[in-house]
Amino acid sequence: MTAATPRIQGVLSPVLTPFRADYTPDADRFIRHCRWLLAQQVGLAIFGTNSEANSMSVAEKRALFDALLEAGLPPARMMPGTGCCAVPDSIELTKRAVQAGVAGCLMLPPFYYKGVSDEGLYRNFAAIIDAVADERLRIYLYHIPPVSNTPITRGLVARLLKSYPGIVAGMKDSSGDWNNTKAMIEEFGPQGFDVFAGSENFLLADLRAGGPGCITATANVNPTAIVRLYQSWRQADADTQQAQLDATRAAFAQFPMIPAMKAAIAWKTGRKDWVHVRPPLVDLDAGQQQALQSALDRVGFTMPDAGALA
Amino acid sequence: MTAATPRIQGVLSPVLTPFRADYTPDADRFIRHCRWLLAQQVGLAIFGTNSEANSMSVAEKRALFDALLEAGLPPARMMPGTGCCAVPDSIELTKRAVQAGVAGCLMLPPFYYKGVSDEGLYRNFAAIIDAVADERLRIYLYHIPPVSNTPITRGLVARLLKSYPGIVAGMKDSSGDWNNTKAMIEEFGPQGFDVFAGSENFLLADLRAGGPGCITATANVNPTAIVRLYQSWRQADADTQQAQLDATRAAFAQFPMIPAMKAAIAWKTGRKDWVHVRPPLVDLDAGQQQALQSALDRVGFTMPDAGALA
Repeated sequence: MTAATPRIQGVLSPVLTPFRADYTPDADRFIRHCRWLLAQQVGLAIFGTNSEANSMSVAEKRALFDALLEAGLPPARMMPGTGCCAVPDSIELTKRAVQAGVAGCLMLPPFYYKGVSDEGLYRNFAAIIDAVADERLRIYLYHIPPVSNTPITRGLVARLLKSYPGIVAGMKDSSGDWNNTKAMIEEFGPQGFDVFAGSENFLLADLRAGGPGCITATANVNPTAIVRLYQSWRQADADTQQAQLDATRAAFAQFPMIPAMKAAIAWKTGRKDWVHVRPPLVDLDAGQQQALQSALDRVGFTMPDAGALA
Repeated sequence: MTAATPRIQGVLSPVLTPFRADYTPDADRFIRHCRWLLAQQVGLAIFGTNSEANSMSVAEKRALFDALLEAGLPPARMMPGTGCCAVPDSIELTKRAVQAGVAGCLMLPPFYYKGVSDEGLYRNFAAIIDAVADERLRIYLYHIPPVSNTPITRGLVARLLKSYPGIVAGMKDSSGDWNNTKAMIEEFGPQGFDVFAGSENFLLADLRAGGPGCITATANVNPTAIVRLYQSWRQADADTQQAQLDATRAAFAQFPMIPAMKAAIAWKTGRKDWVHVRPPLVDLDAGQQQALQSALDRVGFTMPDAGALA
């Protein structure tokens, strides 16, 4: 890593994946959504939890990734999720992403077995890094114990950083536990390890502690305000901005987040196809959609330039 | 389903998958292990939890399945695990298995998202059944909340049985909660729904309650004794047999089960390659192997005809 290739920072979004009514991915709508996010200065953490990435096959993810590249979107603004339960799947997706020149790969640990050891997780990441065998690889470890049930401990980070300095570049902390994020920044930040907050609720805290920003679901729907805080966090109104971000997120969080964000985009763009989610998720029913719209109206929610998504 | 094609019953094993030191699957050793299990009257629940199925890609599972067929092993004695997080993967594996003529498919629910609704799980199974669109399909629902964190509720079973009678054929209950197994048998057994116990600890109870048998990891290493209880459970010594099975299982269960079973086979066959597991699992260290051998010696553990596995 040279001074000419700075690490990706700022606000990234686990990009929602648009599906048709028959559950097939809608690549054209995906490209439009990615373009809209880039125009709002949001980086593309495609294939994250909120992208329903684990509900897609490896082949489907490869096809969507290729569609973005063919459409001319910049890989340097992408951090695809490439961590799977099966090491060969993780290797395949990571290798493809690195060869395309992505900024980094956001890697879930394998999440089927529970109570696995740090030794087992170390072997997982080491097997992937060794097989990809590319100095351009930048791994961001994905700590999301409420969903994966498989935490990324400080002991594991320390061991990986020692074995793979430069390659192991940072993490996304979706624990919801600020004390954990803070401890990770304090312990590993000085080694160039970038600890992204897992939601904009901790964006200001992350920046004040020396972190790089956040990777947050809500950037799919509320990018402008989140990016504005990132760009102006040293200004006097930063805490007020943070409070407004928290209020908007709370309006979404009353509902299952992924269907709620998709319903909000369908509402604001008038494109009802946006509501579809793959099983085991379920789209909001009419009553929930109405309640969501009321909650969003109460916090003054708007989507800038929603026409670009239609 | 006609009288000419009775449902699979008895003792099945989630077949251990042999890997080489470089983590690649060893198809020849897999075939030998399957043949040995069949010779012991154990059915082949390949690609289960104890098979490290979720640590393999779809392509790897297809290749191992094809290798078994090419070796002439009978699909009517197979119940492959075909439930994945991504519906397209589940459809691909299930379709292939049904076309080959398997006895049934053991289906995990999608296990990444937590707290999903029965409606979402219903849509998952319905999407798979509708896409496979084959009257020969027999689905066994896989209830293993300690690992999947996604229970198969009685409400979900009732709804699936109503929509897909005949197709939804039974379940494996790996909850470890006999009251749940009993309730499933009592409520759905009369509709021809076969509730397999998830371990031999509940084999005798399952048979006495009218259940079909068990699908159990330990059948990989202790098949003869488990099958003997299945074949003689109405005899006076059944409780004594059950107690002996429990003692053997307890000796294994002091250790991580999958590495322990592989270590036991490596020990009894003299083929050290058997010890390999894929990340995030970790093979037993030398001290654990020694402790396992002592524990197994104490319960008089033997593997019949282990030479066939070497």
